[in-house]
Amino acid sequence: MSVFSFARRSGVVPAATLVMAAAAQPAAADPVHAFTLDNGLEVVVIEDHRAPAVVHMLWYRVGAADEPPGLSGIAHFLEHLMFKGTDTRAPGEFSAVVESVGGRDNAFTGWDFTAYHQRVAADYLGLMMELEADRMANLAFTEAEWLPERDVILEERGQVVEGRPGSLFNEQIRATLFQNHPYGVPIIGWRHEMEGLSGADAMAFHAAHYGPNNAVLIVAGDVRPEAVRALAEEHYGAVPANPAVAPRQRPQEPPHLAERRIKMTDPRVAQPYVLRQYLAPARRAGDQAEAAALTVLAEILGGTRTTSVLGRKLTFAKPPAETPVALSASAWYMPVALDDTSFALAVVPAEDVGLAEAEAALDAALAEFLADGIDPEQFARVQTRIRAAEIYSRDRSESRARSKGMALTSGLTLADVDGWTEALMAVTPEAVMAAAATVLDRQRAVTGWLQGPEAAPRRGPAAVEQPMTEVSQ
Amino acid sequence: MSVFSFARRSGVVPAATLVMAAAAQPAAADPVHAFTLDNGLEVVVIEDHRAPAVVHMLWYRVGAADEPPGLSGIAHFLEHLMFKGTDTRAPGEFSAVVESVGGRDNAFTGWDFTAYHQRVAADYLGLMMELEADRMANLAFTEAEWLPERDVILEERGQVVEGRPGSLFNEQIRATLFQNHPYGVPIIGWRHEMEGLSGADAMAFHAAHYGPNNAVLIVAGDVRPEAVRALAEEHYGAVPANPAVAPRQRPQEPPHLAERRIKMTDPRVAQPYVLRQYLAPARRAGDQAEAAALTVLAEILGGTRTTSVLGRKLTFAKPPAETPVALSASAWYMPVALDDTSFALAVVPAEDVGLAEAEAALDAALAEFLADGIDPEQFARVQTRIRAAEIYSRDRSESRARSKGMALTSGLTLADVDGWTEALMAVTPEAVMAAAATVLDRQRAVTGWLQGPEAAPRRGPAAVEQPMTEVSQ
Repeated sequence: MSVFSFARRSGVVPAATLVMAAAAQPAAADPVHAFTLDNGLEVVVIEDHRAPAVVHMLWYRVGAADEPPGLSGIAHFLEHLMFKGTDTRAPGEFSAVVESVGGRDNAFTGWDFTAYHQRVAADYLGLMMELEADRMANLAFTEAEWLPERDVILEERGQVVEGRPGSLFNEQIRATLFQNHPYGVPIIGWRHEMEGLSGADAMAFHAAHYGPNNAVLIVAGDVRPEAVRALAEEHYGAVPANPAVAPRQRPQEPPHLAERRIKMTDPRVAQPYVLRQYLAPARRAGDQAEAAALTVLAEILGGTRTTSVLGRKLTFAKPPAETPVALSASAWYMPVALDDTSFALAVVPAEDVGLAEAEAALDAALAEFLADGIDPEQFARVQTRIRAAEIYSRDRSESRARSKGMALTSGLTLADVDGWTEALMAVTPEAVMAAAATVLDRQRAVTGWLQGPEAAPRRGPAAVEQPMTEVSQ
Repeated sequence: MSVFSFARRSGVVPAATLVMAAAAQPAAADPVHAFTLDNGLEVVVIEDHRAPAVVHMLWYRVGAADEPPGLSGIAHFLEHLMFKGTDTRAPGEFSAVVESVGGRDNAFTGWDFTAYHQRVAADYLGLMMELEADRMANLAFTEAEWLPERDVILEERGQVVEGRPGSLFNEQIRATLFQNHPYGVPIIGWRHEMEGLSGADAMAFHAAHYGPNNAVLIVAGDVRPEAVRALAEEHYGAVPANPAVAPRQRPQEPPHLAERRIKMTDPRVAQPYVLRQYLAPARRAGDQAEAAALTVLAEILGGTRTTSVLGRKLTFAKPPAETPVALSASAWYMPVALDDTSFALAVVPAEDVGLAEAEAALDAALAEFLADGIDPEQFARVQTRIRAAEIYSRDRSESRARSKGMALTSGLTLADVDGWTEALMAVTPEAVMAAAATVLDRQRAVTGWLQGPEAAPRRGPAAVEQPMTEVSQ
């Protein structure tokens, strides 16, 4: 089964969810303990004794952007093959064991990480570690096993990318935005390269990147740190550090000197739209201020329809016009990434409004915003929403485990994770405007039009396909 | 000193040169001999006894498109460092020796090859081989030598790329055209990556790619094949094959699904222009028909102003208009490349004509051409021009050596080189129109506008910067 996960719009949860959050009366954050085993494995324990369950996540500091050229998709292919077998365990045994103890498991691959997770009753934590350490050290599969799995990932690409014009469009946008960095290559891989991937390629990728010294273990739930340490030492401690692991170095972007545009026509497009992606800085260790400002900017520009800048300016009629320019306008930003990331804006034009007109209206709205600055009332409301969302996310231990794992494999530290809410609250309107002035530069952006065949009637409304940040098993 | 070499427009020499060619009454091609040494070195000997000189060229089957990600420019940096020293020769000794015998030497790097050549009196051929084999096997340099050379290549980038908006524009066009293939990375390198190149990187690249089994030796001039073989066996035969040499495999392009556009503004631009590059097939071993048709197409579309399709349609006034749309219109195509290459069109608008209007006129002219087909008289004229240019180029042994070296390091065989004129002559108008219909697809193209600051007076005329295909030492 294939599931995609999307970047949440502007990094906050929908308003409807916020009501639930308030009702839940979130507790103060549970204690977090961190330590490192002798073989280099970093361990983070998040205590949460409200239920007798535990989430066990192993995050590797390797993802699609670490793939060798020409082998796109190998990180995700390996993630699939990790469910085959080991020297002593049969193919499929991993998931069968998890299921037999009433647990559930999954895995996902991003540009910067590959993660495996299980949720089980707390008693089975040691068993999960035993299984996970085994496939870290002793992965084994035959051609009879890897060859059909390649068809599985190809089928997955067919369904979740090629079957969706919006996904193909996002691929083309990124391939155009990134001139040098492998963020321009899709996580799932280019089909023509996936077709040539082999079990040996996956094994070589495993040998180069998998090992305790390139992984972060996150355990969240009804556990005590000292017990987790003892279990981790027993199971993971036996795996030696992998001397092949090298520092992560990806090609970085050269200066962007030219505004770029793409136009994609696909007969399946029911509702055309304009999507723009700007190159934007990510959260950096010890330096999250600009990323925080961009997170607030995304919410201010594209948060809710009735309160956001683009929502107000584009989705309501502006006299003398009797109808609005757009059905919707949105903004999103992915702040957690090892290298420079993107800040995106999208406009879905109203019926009878062309893409050129919608784009012009978007640019006029941005120019007005850059000239007028931020409405203080709106700024205060956005800060409240962001704070509530952050508090809400802290209340779910699985969500906390996830955000810590992602951060620690994307160049951040636990201190950065802890300081993120504070960084968001410290954002001033001036910082937002400064970040907007820097990042909203069309010379460092791609503007894309996705459209159906000429003169085809719009069958919309259809949602804008938001960028995928990971592929799940 | 730094010299750039440009792709010749549509692969033929200017008309003025053709007159000289006719006057020279070209001889039939001199005999060519080819053999391979036991260590894998391919040797091609082109006899030409008209002057007692010899051209000695060593071509490696490695270029900028074979560089590891993040180390752009390393192939060219190594080419510079090859002039330092060896285990037994001092830095600069190579060129000093060549000069002392009255010869001249140079080197150049392309995406697909790196080549070193000297022209000397025929008596010194053995000496050239001795020197070249020495640096193939025993290259050596210190940090005191490589560190300043890095400043030299950075300075070279400053002069020939950053100092010329047209060069920067070409870089941005290619970075946008190629979504996956390293042809999108400049031969000279991205500055931010060049700044980090080290002598160790260059030595590792040398160790991975340089060796007799990855090289082609071309000797042209007043020599006998048996004498060349004896000298080659004496000097190059002593160098063992390099077991590190691996088959060349570069990431290939995914399907291009979206038309792309870029707009670059640079205050130094005196004359704006429109440049479009389409992804296009290159000459392939045993299959040169489509490349031949594209070569003819480039000449038909953009050959001389008075006879070419774009020249006629765009640079002469079309009643009722009193002035033409464009000052010039050109087309070029680079048929020799290991992987898919590009077909380019450019239009320099007339004074008071905007880039949008110029581009629209270009597209209208192309649409007319695709609808109307080829004028038979023009087709005959173009074939005559191409034949004359090919015959002319065959008359210069250095040019023949060069074209053979480039072909043999770009996936072609001597048979392909020999068959190229025939392939060009076999092109039919139907084949040209079929190639045009396939390649002139905006979904597989980038259209770029290069312009000066808004409202700046045009200081033109200035020539369109044609794509660089190599960087010389």
